[in-house]
Amino acid sequence: MNRLMLVGIGPGNAANMTEACRNALLSADAIFGYTPYLALLKPLFPHKAFFGTPMKGEVARCRAALHLAAEGKVVSLVSSGDAGIYGMASLVYELSPEFPTVSIAVVPGITAALSGAALLGSPLGHDFAVISLSDLLTPWDLIERRLRAIAAGDLAICIYNPASNGRREHLKRSCDILLEILPPDRVCALVRNIGRADEGYTLTSLGELRTMHTDMHTTVFIGNANTRVINGKMVTPRGYRHA
Amino acid sequence: MNRLMLVGIGPGNAANMTEACRNALLSADAIFGYTPYLALLKPLFPHKAFFGTPMKGEVARCRAALHLAAEGKVVSLVSSGDAGIYGMASLVYELSPEFPTVSIAVVPGITAALSGAALLGSPLGHDFAVISLSDLLTPWDLIERRLRAIAAGDLAICIYNPASNGRREHLKRSCDILLEILPPDRVCALVRNIGRADEGYTLTSLGELRTMHTDMHTTVFIGNANTRVINGKMVTPRGYRHA
Repeated sequence: MNRLMLVGIGPGNAANMTEACRNALLSADAIFGYTPYLALLKPLFPHKAFFGTPMKGEVARCRAALHLAAEGKVVSLVSSGDAGIYGMASLVYELSPEFPTVSIAVVPGITAALSGAALLGSPLGHDFAVISLSDLLTPWDLIERRLRAIAAGDLAICIYNPASNGRREHLKRSCDILLEILPPDRVCALVRNIGRADEGYTLTSLGELRTMHTDMHTTVFIGNANTRVINGKMVTPRGYRHA
Repeated sequence: MNRLMLVGIGPGNAANMTEACRNALLSADAIFGYTPYLALLKPLFPHKAFFGTPMKGEVARCRAALHLAAEGKVVSLVSSGDAGIYGMASLVYELSPEFPTVSIAVVPGITAALSGAALLGSPLGHDFAVISLSDLLTPWDLIERRLRAIAAGDLAICIYNPASNGRREHLKRSCDILLEILPPDRVCALVRNIGRADEGYTLTSLGELRTMHTDMHTTVFIGNANTRVINGKMVTPRGYRHA
């Protein structure tokens, strides 16, 4: 059977890859992905054939991977984090009817919500929402509607893509929407460069978050009404302690 | 430094453990956890000291692990999935001020939202919420409020703990709340026994989901307005295809 594996590599360091990820890449004839992610993988898998494409080359990248799999090669298409969380999995499934001989499987990976939360302590210890602020593929109106809904439900929040070139105001606008419902002292944090040597985090409040600088390597966490800081960690209790 | 590692073991099979999880367990003097999870680990780490406790023994389990770490042992406390997602991480941080000599770290793992999504295809390919239906530690009123908010935001949904002994009506009641806003033909799925030999899934609709049987080994996925079934997989597009 012709196989395409959609492999989540986690934050990029070997320690946070799963055994299934490693095995998928070891067994692959070809590894496709966004060029900067492939640079992380080449030292770990030195004898593999890598096919890198730039950002915004997503459809071409997925089609090329599917074509090669249809020709009988075992192909891995990598996403950072998890391929199913703002990764390439949905797009590949959308294209899959054109490639009926290719069997597709997803190998889950440690997405930034999990790797970032682990650095911070336990910010997602109760119900939570994950939302991207990128309006390249999502109308901004829908992002605003979702932010209001999430705040109304007092869910903890993990924000992907808080900013990138040309979208520097998105986090500020999002904070202003959340502040219509949530208090300015709500516990928040920024996590930067997860899985890299210079990874780190900053604890802050929702009122301060709106003025802070973020980039495409930042993930943002916003607590719920019970979230607090304990010994420098961001902790959202579930309630066991008083059960 | 006295160390306690909060280790997410993923769904329970070796393939979905990270290298950091494996290393944490290999380096531990003692491994604490809910007894059924330890049964999964014993064959993989045959020479370790395991300390199992039953469900509802969470506070005692965390205190015992912290005490042993304070005595100088390297201790791992395992959670299925990820310790920060309905796991033990928040509780340990809440107790941590009583154990000032213990350094705590979280090793992230593949939570059921990710492992279940990988089986299904790509149900969480756009913004989503994760919610537990267990009202052991959360007032049911808050669960209902959150379900209404999530539906209002048209977020994809992953439901943990849809049922357990004595809580057989929770999924039905939750579906009825969601159906106040969402249509009965909304794409849904049940995933069972993730990571085990008999893992599998059933695709369904929100209208049908309310009558379906679930147990504590089931995770439920509910799509957003754009979710559809493609070749037997549940797919929530992000929008790349038409970008």
